[in-house]
Formats: sequence, structure tokens, C-alpha cells
Amino acid sequence: MSLTLHGYFRSSAAYRVRIALNLKGLSYEQASVHLRKGEQRKPAFLALNPQGMVPALIDGEAVLTQSPAILEYLDEVYPDTPPLLPADPLGRARVRALAAVVACDIHPLNNLRVLKYLTGPMGQSQETMAGWYNHWIAEGFGALETMLSGDAATGRFCHGDAPTLADVCLAPQVFNSFRHALDLTPYPTIQRLWEGYQDHPAFAAAHPAKQPDAE
Amino acid sequence: MSLTLHGYFRSSAAYRVRIALNLKGLSYEQASVHLRKGEQRKPAFLALNPQGMVPALIDGEAVLTQSPAILEYLDEVYPDTPPLLPADPLGRARVRALAAVVACDIHPLNNLRVLKYLTGPMGQSQETMAGWYNHWIAEGFGALETMLSGDAATGRFCHGDAPTLADVCLAPQVFNSFRHALDLTPYPTIQRLWEGYQDHPAFAAAHPAKQPDAE
Repeated sequence: MSLTLHGYFRSSAAYRVRIALNLKGLSYEQASVHLRKGEQRKPAFLALNPQGMVPALIDGEAVLTQSPAILEYLDEVYPDTPPLLPADPLGRARVRALAAVVACDIHPLNNLRVLKYLTGPMGQSQETMAGWYNHWIAEGFGALETMLSGDAATGRFCHGDAPTLADVCLAPQVFNSFRHALDLTPYPTIQRLWEGYQDHPAFAAAHPAKQPDAE
Repeated sequence: MSLTLHGYFRSSAAYRVRIALNLKGLSYEQASVHLRKGEQRKPAFLALNPQGMVPALIDGEAVLTQSPAILEYLDEVYPDTPPLLPADPLGRARVRALAAVVACDIHPLNNLRVLKYLTGPMGQSQETMAGWYNHWIAEGFGALETMLSGDAATGRFCHGDAPTLADVCLAPQVFNSFRHALDLTPYPTIQRLWEGYQDHPAFAAAHPAKQPDAE
């Protein structure tokens, strides 16, 4: 089998998939799609993903898009690798809910196309944009902090002592929050988890600064 | 077993869960959380869901949040009901990707808290807000139309001839698009699917106008 990840070093969604591939010990090629230069809207990439967004994962003949779908696919198709979801249905639901707080309620509001729309067609200042950016991260992190700190299921990672889809989504979002210098002090559990990610080889190797297209 | 859905008639995310429960033939109670009156931020509801968002599904002793997690949970825990995902991994990935276009890239930009932030703290006009609203639906529907019309796997529903998670997410988003009168003419496949949903009892019964808290 051959895996190729079309991504971008700073894309949170591509970063998630890199972590998952690393956690599962799957080797993969990387193809960089330069989002700031608009390569995601070129015909060659749109043929892979009509949405014009990264990541797209090529697995043999198949093209997979949307990181939440890719993460579930990897967990289903490579079951002999470390699982990204716990075995029990309520645990799976908890992990998926934590992941969705990031993937549905924080990240979509802060990705590049949205920020460009705010500062472009809507004519907002950089300062207003930065306020928007940090507002939605703080909303989400506040809820996540309560969900994590108030539940005995939280361990060294979001759910127990092994990484799950929740960590796969949270790590890129914490990295992302540094962009406009969000203060993480109100979120001690999230900070502790982030520090743990630094010590884990699968997370460390997926860090944007370590990617071939890092600037 | 006893199921109670805490939702709101016009919430897209609650609408998704209603459709899924109906497709699976599961009976449930409804508890209305009046979003416009801010009931989602009252202590009683925050105790159920620290995020202060609907839906929350109570299944016996368990509280489940985040509609994508709830939908997967229902499919895992009630396997003797019609499945919401196909059996093959690539089909499952396609359905989840279509669902994620709605759940991650359209709906999060247009929910009530975001619109309130635009017209409140950011001081944008109703007209600018409506433009924003329709812009993100059009972006997502344009991609979905290509993904659906260009793939032989699309049938009477998004994936084959039975409803899946993709339809569960798409139907509420189409309903949502009527709010600021988005023109659906450029999206004939989405229009055809929407018409099919009207004829399906599980979708019809989940329609916002049919809910006990409808205004």
C-alpha cells in the first residue's frame, strides 16, 4: 500500500492526519499544497478534492478528503495499529465529542479562508480579526477545559493514558492558538496535555515546524 | 431504555439527531432549550453540556453531546436498526466526508452564536450578516454538488438509495439555506435530494415546523 498526504505544514486539518498516521506507524509521502499561494484552487488539486481544501489522503487508488472522515477511515482500515478510539461506545462518544468541539466549533471559524473573508470582502482590521480568532478558541477551550477537568476519564491524554482522536484534534488547535498569543492560563488541563504532546514522538514529528514545506 | 433529546426546533444539529432517531425507529422524548431566550447558558443546561449548545441526548444514565458523536453512537449502539453508514470503508469515508462538509465547513459558520457575534460585538449590518450566511452555504453547496453529481455512488440519497449520515446532515442545512433565500438553482442534485427528503417519513417528522416547540 502507498499513502500520500496532500497537505500544508500549517494546516490544522493536515496536522491532525499527520499525527494519526504517525500514531499508527504508517509511512507516507507528503505533497505540499501551498495555501497562501492558492494552490488548493488549481485544477490539479480540485480534481482530487472539489472542495479545494487540504488534506487529501491518497491510499492506493482511493482519494479521501475531510480530516474527520480520514481519521475514522485510518482507524477502521488499519486495525492492527494502535486504536484512536476506545472500545466502549460511551468512551467512543466522549472522544468524538471532544474532537468535534475542536473540529466543528473552533477550527472552522479560524481557518485561512474565513480570515481572508473577514479582512477582504468584510473589510475588517487585523485587530478585529485577531479578536475574532481568539474569541472562538477561548469559547471552545473554556468548554473543553470543563469537559476534561470534570471527568475522571481524562488521564495523561484526553481519554485515559493513550492518545485518541480527541488529542489528534486538540494538539493542532493548541498550536494554532499561539498565532495571536492566546493566554492559556485559564486552561490548565489543556496546557498539561499540550506539554505531554511535546514528549510524544508521533505528535512531535507531526509539528508544523518539522514538515518539508515549513517556512 | 429511555431517550431524551434536549434540542430546539430550529437548531440544525438537533434536527440531524431527530432524523437519525426517526430513521432508526427509536422513540424519544423532547426537551426544548430555547436558544433565543438563552436557556442553553443556564446552569441546569450547562450541567448537562458545559459547551452550552444543543443537542444533548440522554440515553439512560448517559449524557451525549455533539451531534457528529451522537450520530455515530446511535449507529454503534443500535445496530439492529437501519445503518446510517455503508459497510465498506471507502463508502463510509465518502459518507463521512460529505457529512463533514456540512458539519465542519458550512454549519459552524452560520449558527446563532456566530451571527450574534457578527451583528453584536462586530457591529455588522443584517445585510452583511446575510451575505456572510449565504456565502458559506454557497461555498459548501458548490463543492457538495460536484462531489455528488460527479460520483456514480450517489443515488436516490447521497450514497446509494438509502439515507446515510450524509443525508442526515444535508437535510437540515438545505432547510437552513432558506433563511436568507439562497438560490438553489446552481445545485440541482442537492435540490433533488431535498425533494426526496420531503417524501421520507423520518425526515418529514423531524422538520422544525413539526416540533412541539415550533414557533
